[in-house]
Amino acid sequence: MMKSLIVLAAMTVSISAFAQSAITIFGVLDVRMAHGAGSVANKTQLISSGLNASRLGFRGVEDLGDGMSASFWLESSLNVDDGTFGTTNTNNQSSGSAGGGAMVFGRRSTMSLSSNWGELRLGRDFTPQFWNLSEFDPFGTTGNGTTQTLNSTITGTTQVRASNSIGYFLPKDALKGLYGQAMYYLGENSSDVGATKNDGNGWGVRLGFSRGPFSVAAATSRTTYAAGNSRQSNVGGQWDAGVATVMAHYAWDKGVVSGVRRNAKGWLVGGLVPVGAGVIRVSYSQYAVDLSSATDRITKKWALGYEYNLSKRTALYATYAHLNNGGGATQALNGATTAANKSSRGYDLGIRHRF
Amino acid sequence: MMKSLIVLAAMTVSISAFAQSAITIFGVLDVRMAHGAGSVANKTQLISSGLNASRLGFRGVEDLGDGMSASFWLESSLNVDDGTFGTTNTNNQSSGSAGGGAMVFGRRSTMSLSSNWGELRLGRDFTPQFWNLSEFDPFGTTGNGTTQTLNSTITGTTQVRASNSIGYFLPKDALKGLYGQAMYYLGENSSDVGATKNDGNGWGVRLGFSRGPFSVAAATSRTTYAAGNSRQSNVGGQWDAGVATVMAHYAWDKGVVSGVRRNAKGWLVGGLVPVGAGVIRVSYSQYAVDLSSATDRITKKWALGYEYNLSKRTALYATYAHLNNGGGATQALNGATTAANKSSRGYDLGIRHRF
Amino acid sequence: MMKSLIVLAAMTVSISAFAQSAITIFGVLDVRMAHGAGSVANKTQLISSGLNASRLGFRGVEDLGDGMSASFWLESSLNVDDGTFGTTNTNNQSSGSAGGGAMVFGRRSTMSLSSNWGELRLGRDFTPQFWNLSEFDPFGTTGNGTTQTLNSTITGTTQVRASNSIGYFLPKDALKGLYGQAMYYLGENSSDVGATKNDGNGWGVRLGFSRGPFSVAAATSRTTYAAGNSRQSNVGGQWDAGVATVMAHYAWDKGVVSGVRRNAKGWLVGGLVPVGAGVIRVSYSQYAVDLSSATDRITKKWALGYEYNLSKRTALYATYAHLNNGGGATQALNGATTAANKSSRGYDLGIRHRF
Repeated sequence: MMKSLIVLAAMTVSISAFAQSAITIFGVLDVRMAHGAGSVANKTQLISSGLNASRLGFRGVEDLGDGMSASFWLESSLNVDDGTFGTTNTNNQSSGSAGGGAMVFGRRSTMSLSSNWGELRLGRDFTPQFWNLSEFDPFGTTGNGTTQTLNSTITGTTQVRASNSIGYFLPKDALKGLYGQAMYYLGENSSDVGATKNDGNGWGVRLGFSRGPFSVAAATSRTTYAAGNSRQSNVGGQWDAGVATVMAHYAWDKGVVSGVRRNAKGWLVGGLVPVGAGVIRVSYSQYAVDLSSATDRITKKWALGYEYNLSKRTALYATYAHLNNGGGATQALNGATTAANKSSRGYDLGIRHRF
Repeated sequence: MMKSLIVLAAMTVSISAFAQSAITIFGVLDVRMAHGAGSVANKTQLISSGLNASRLGFRGVEDLGDGMSASFWLESSLNVDDGTFGTTNTNNQSSGSAGGGAMVFGRRSTMSLSSNWGELRLGRDFTPQFWNLSEFDPFGTTGNGTTQTLNSTITGTTQVRASNSIGYFLPKDALKGLYGQAMYYLGENSSDVGATKNDGNGWGVRLGFSRGPFSVAAATSRTTYAAGNSRQSNVGGQWDAGVATVMAHYAWDKGVVSGVRRNAKGWLVGGLVPVGAGVIRVSYSQYAVDLSSATDRITKKWALGYEYNLSKRTALYATYAHLNNGGGATQALNGATTAANKSSRGYDLGIRHRF
Repeated sequence: MMKSLIVLAAMTVSISAFAQSAITIFGVLDVRMAHGAGSVANKTQLISSGLNASRLGFRGVEDLGDGMSASFWLESSLNVDDGTFGTTNTNNQSSGSAGGGAMVFGRRSTMSLSSNWGELRLGRDFTPQFWNLSEFDPFGTTGNGTTQTLNSTITGTTQVRASNSIGYFLPKDALKGLYGQAMYYLGENSSDVGATKNDGNGWGVRLGFSRGPFSVAAATSRTTYAAGNSRQSNVGGQWDAGVATVMAHYAWDKGVVSGVRRNAKGWLVGGLVPVGAGVIRVSYSQYAVDLSSATDRITKKWALGYEYNLSKRTALYATYAHLNNGGGATQALNGATTAANKSSRGYDLGIRHRF
């Protein structure tokens, strides 16, 4: 039970009352009153995606016989507050943002062939190196509570998703708890552009194991950028102890900061506790970038949240978070602005509806 | 019968043959050959939205028990002639246009909780100060016949809709004919931008009463803009006399014109007459802006329309309108261009299909 | 049987498992690993639309009685690899591109009234002058195998589609094999812009005849551009001989090249052979532009493809093509770059799923 709750918070799974043999329309509308406070400026907004990422999507499966199936998944990132959408990226490079606020399937756009040998998945998808940060974050990398190991990361465009990807997933439920995926993605440059011809190319792999209340996984990746390559690696795990689920992850990255390639490390500990029709979530996370100065550029964050379920599909929630910056970091919450080494705090008050 | 026809013309209600417990896809395709003539230039176009606004949308309702429900409404503005969409606005300010012609839910993007205490509605929606102009216009503020009290209005970005809004609606059918709504909307600026930090913030309220063939309502609002605040206030009413429905509204606004805050007044009288499978619509409207010169900047408009229903969902229609400008006004119809104080005329010939 | 396969490859027909009386959601997801090689640069990409054009659409039909019906068709062009969309064009002119990579119904956006007199179709649609190039191309003008008579054409914006169009189609199956359509489209300029006021206006007509295994058709068109008018004319036909279907088309165009109005001619011969659950396609096409120099600017192309159907909706495919340039032509395949008079080659390896 706890495990499935975590998965719902962290992944793109959604319950559809509109299932058909061929196509399902699905979505999440999550709206929150969000306040952020910082040393320079505060901000109050009605925005989206405090508990689960708002989205609108279309997916379908075709049974091809012999245990084989073809399927697709098209999912956009929706901003309920003003009717706009999140962008996508066409080339896994800093230049590749596309959509401009209108509807694109930036969260996922894939076509798959599946069988007992696993799944071949083509298109735009989450990268393998993203999942440990999200599945082993009580807040599922969503909203005000999002782990600092994602918010501060220095790994660039492919830290969450990649386009032009060829992915492979191990078969589900066939390997006695072993699960995993590998992905190769293309920047799609012409061969005559010299040093930048591999800009946006990369790969990631993830391998995990789950048995009963336990799940652990590790991932590593490499993306080639013209500005300097990045590595995003992490391990994570969780234990569902019944009264509570505890989880943790550790991340070590390489990326380019102000033109220089740097190392960074981060970690999270947290958990969630079911309380009646609700869930309490709590986490501590931090992320430190080694800038070869006396102190690392570091951000440390506490987050506390409560979700109250009106039904399986609809929930009210509140989240409070506080962070401290050091070594020149200027991270801030919910749109606030804070000066170097100053703190920031923020809260969300929201409602989430899935269909 | 007459009342429901008016509502269909003026509001976002649409009949769906695709209803499900969880999600409905709905839309309107309205295409017209539109001609406009003015003193400077004429224009002939195949465009959208002559009788009802073309749209594509997704909505759903979930019964939460105890008379409570969660619902959502996502509605885009469609241009059938070329497959583009109308824009939205992210911050209720002149700078906030988004979408660039691609799909955004600019007509409405809301998430609601409803119960016997009414409806809490969050997101992007029509403003309370818009409805009297539209419901008490025989042409429902759509197409060539649209009331001049909307086309000339000086109240800025939130004259029809606002994003980032928190709205409340009185319960339907529970208050013996009393109906109403209030809305607060946010410009979402940082707190450190001085004089412009409230740019795009505002509120509107509307209260009405309907009994049998009568309906009356009044609304007022205030939006803070960096360029100068605006007020949009109006009253309206209609009487369904069986052979015809007559309606009227009166509007008094404040807004910024060429950098100076001005007052404006406008009004409409009109009605509609059912004739067999069709409806005849007629209206006279005018809008005058006090520029502290000898004569107000004024536009006066006549409109005459006929709708012939092929079915409940599909109709053919024709609309003719003529306007006169004075005091320097340059309003023109259907894309024409007209010089100051000159007239303009236009016609629509179209087809509308709802699903 | 062969005929229907061709139609599926070339047209927007798709099989939906989601049919309702009022609305059908339909789509194609076609993803391919595409490699192009040229004398200047090669390119390897994961892109869309190698066998059929990827798309997402909504369409519906309403029976109005007496043999009359109202219908609509909204169809976007989808890029599965990154979740973006193809653009549309609002004014049939080089300035009119819209959408910016987000969802627009650029493939088709139409509203129709149909009866025993035929179909009146309004909006954005394929032009009559396009169909012979596509229906009588074994590759249906899609992917690496697309006929050079389309890829090299000099006829400008309306060579495939036009917006703001009024179209008429002869009734289906009522004229003993005669079929045809006419279309008039508007650039929608103001009347005071002088020489450019007709920019983007145009018309096309197509007339064909099919009986048993034979089908032939001819089309001609004219589009007014500010830069100089274009004509796109062509004839084509096919014969389904049972073991194979052979087809050919011939095209003669006028258009503006580097500021001068030029003539061009092209042709294709090809066919397809069903082999078990698969289809082999082959074609030779060429297109020559008369630049009043010693040799025409010419491109000659061979294409060979194989499609293997996993089901009626899902297929794997591979296509190889090779082209030679002459007279200064620089055409290249699959994103490669090639110098004047050099060759290019490319292959596709893909999967297509319809719903």
